Amino acid sequence: MAGREGGYASGRLRREQIITAATELFARVGYRHATILELAEAAGISRTGLLHHFGSKEALLSAVLERRDAEDAARFAGADTDETGLAALSTLVELAWHNAERPHLVALFAVLSAEASDPDHPAHEYFVDRYRGTVADVAASLTRAKASGLLAPDVDPAGQARTLVALMDGLQVQWLLSPAEVDMAGTLRAQLERVLTVPLPD
Amino acid sequence: MAGREGGYASGRLRREQIITAATELFARVGYRHATILELAEAAGISRTGLLHHFGSKEALLSAVLERRDAEDAARFAGADTDETGLAALSTLVELAWHNAERPHLVALFAVLSAEASDPDHPAHEYFVDRYRGTVADVAASLTRAKASGLLAPDVDPAGQARTLVALMDGLQVQWLLSPAEVDMAGTLRAQLERVLTVPLPD
Repeated sequence: MAGREGGYASGRLRREQIITAATELFARVGYRHATILELAEAAGISRTGLLHHFGSKEALLSAVLERRDAEDAARFAGADTDETGLAALSTLVELAWHNAERPHLVALFAVLSAEASDPDHPAHEYFVDRYRGTVADVAASLTRAKASGLLAPDVDPAGQARTLVALMDGLQVQWLLSPAEVDMAGTLRAQLERVLTVPLPD
Repeated sequence: MAGREGGYASGRLRREQIITAATELFARVGYRHATILELAEAAGISRTGLLHHFGSKEALLSAVLERRDAEDAARFAGADTDETGLAALSTLVELAWHNAERPHLVALFAVLSAEASDPDHPAHEYFVDRYRGTVADVAASLTRAKASGLLAPDVDPAGQARTLVALMDGLQVQWLLSPAEVDMAGTLRAQLERVLTVPLPD
């Protein structure tokens, strides 16, 4: 039993190391250009070893996407329990700041989310579900803000949630192309303050 | 002279036919997956014939992008001469309607604009210039609307122009993934009416 647990824990650690290496390599050379062999070398294991943990490049991509989401969720944990929704909405601006520190990962997500509109793309279901979930989360925060009287009465939470998520994505494309000209966090904050009746906390 | 002119006109027609075929093929199978041979076959000419008109796939891509812009410019010609800017802003909503009829071209642009954040991408300069130009055009329309008292006084034309362009791009990604759930034109119209002091013309 102890041996099996040890093996499980060690396999899990190895998986995490592979995901870390793959995230760096995908972000640097792009998902399409990274080969299984390069991914294995980056993780310091053999090609066979990598394929033992992840049966394909697609499976490794899924693991990269899931970990990014888990990290973002941990980073912003608790924000969705505030009664007025304001803390959760502030985390969107914080996320824009955070993204400005990781252009390669932002570029990877921008390309993948567009490529994944093809139903045959390995990340199609992931991105469909991800947007549905993100828009629903933001809408829930806006609904709480509305109930607290902090949202302009004529703002539709569902439509505004879609608007805010779209704005973040579109700003990323402009920022990736011209980083010096685009203030992602500031532009997002201006949109939020346009629909809220109070200033957004820093 | 007559012969030379005839040759020029016929070469120009052939170029246009190749661009039409390439636009359809890029939109259907993607820029990366289309080969020079397939592009030539789609245009009904030889590989050598295609390479005579366009020296590379990158050059053909540039021609596709330029023609789309020329067509959109023709479609919306005159809108930027209206004194209040309102007609030009209405064309953004019309463009969103028009885009909803051509998902493959929208997907092609979404992928390319994100890929092109890499300075080595053949369309990098094109997209940097395109966004700079589009944001400047929308800002000019908003500035005219402001001068005419049709824009909420606290709205910054430059920041709002960036917001509107980003919103259009981000909505495209969400719409490509879940077409039945996303109303691109309606969401864009709601944003415009939030910053204007008058309803937007239909």
